[in-house]
Amino acid sequence: MEKALLHYLQTFLTERRKGLFNKALANRTRHFTVVTEDVYQLHNTSAVMRSCDVFGIQDLHVIEAKLGKRVDREIAMGAQKWVDIHRHHNTKNCLTELKKQGYAIAATTPHGQAIELKDFDVRQKTAVVFGTETQGVSAETLQQADLCVKIPMYGFTESLNISVSAAIILQDIVSRMHQSDISWGLSDRECGEIAMRWTKANIKGVDQIIERYHQNNNDL
Amino acid sequence: MEKALLHYLQTFLTERRKGLFNKALANRTRHFTVVTEDVYQLHNTSAVMRSCDVFGIQDLHVIEAKLGKRVDREIAMGAQKWVDIHRHHNTKNCLTELKKQGYAIAATTPHGQAIELKDFDVRQKTAVVFGTETQGVSAETLQQADLCVKIPMYGFTESLNISVSAAIILQDIVSRMHQSDISWGLSDRECGEIAMRWTKANIKGVDQIIERYHQNNNDL
Repeated sequence: MEKALLHYLQTFLTERRKGLFNKALANRTRHFTVVTEDVYQLHNTSAVMRSCDVFGIQDLHVIEAKLGKRVDREIAMGAQKWVDIHRHHNTKNCLTELKKQGYAIAATTPHGQAIELKDFDVRQKTAVVFGTETQGVSAETLQQADLCVKIPMYGFTESLNISVSAAIILQDIVSRMHQSDISWGLSDRECGEIAMRWTKANIKGVDQIIERYHQNNNDL
Repeated sequence: MEKALLHYLQTFLTERRKGLFNKALANRTRHFTVVTEDVYQLHNTSAVMRSCDVFGIQDLHVIEAKLGKRVDREIAMGAQKWVDIHRHHNTKNCLTELKKQGYAIAATTPHGQAIELKDFDVRQKTAVVFGTETQGVSAETLQQADLCVKIPMYGFTESLNISVSAAIILQDIVSRMHQSDISWGLSDRECGEIAMRWTKANIKGVDQIIERYHQNNNDL
């Protein structure tokens, strides 16, 4: 039933767009997910969302203990059309939920006992947590983390912008994941659900179209 | 003589700073160099300079055929204290000079016959060229390039910001270079020259100190 509706709705998309959807879906993963913790600067949140899309990360978890609705404007800009944004109001709940889903928690930090990015084990289903520009990840994240990971830096500059860090880490681990033999793709059911969301988000007046579709099918 | 002067000047630095210099120098390389071609947005030029420092690239070549003195303000901000900025007024001269120095020219572009980043051969001494935000690298660069390289992208976003692209590419190739057995470090002579520049840039009133030093040495 849902599948038939999806097929019907997809007749409203161009062939090019349908091709894009299929290519993107084939590269989407939930093997890795990204968590941002109180990232203040909007252009950084936005850049992390774009990196998730670019490297095929389907879920982005945004923790906003302090900021309330800051991320709304970003979401309005359209990034959520392609990446699923999950909003959380505190770190503990977010990480507990992700652990229940089988994710190891990797805190990104230039300090302490962090492993180097090249030694990050891509076989492990992992949520990668990025902290604030000034403070890094929270004490709560460090406590809950299964591992810490860092990008080795060799110069005088002591930190990288969060959007740059996220892009570097995602490119590296996704590239190695693709080269591995692990099963990182989405299930058919997940692909169907996401295709439905993407399709709905890309058709004007989709609610009326769906209503008419159901009426016609009930009429049969 | 120069070496004696360097040792003398270094007595004006803190131990911590001297340690930083030595650590950074041990990781500096000219095996790779970076070229930016008419990058308009100042914060992007600045971010590329920072990435060069972070990943140990000693030389940044800035081509400004159209913009004249745009980069001056950036240089004034201090990035050139750690990275050597070489300015060029056209692409052809810059790339010809780099080829004479033994560099292969790698154009970064998402289009055409580009190899994927993971297939980039880190054993080859290479200058990596980044183009403008809107147009990419110039036709001249594409014509002179020995290879094109791209960061594979899997989503709907069609391009990455130049500062993000540069950081991703440098992190990847420098990390693999470090893991290889190639000889990528600077010579003792190069280290001495750079240590002298860094030291001079970090001592207030260094000119008077040097003058006094020479007077004292001539007096002996």
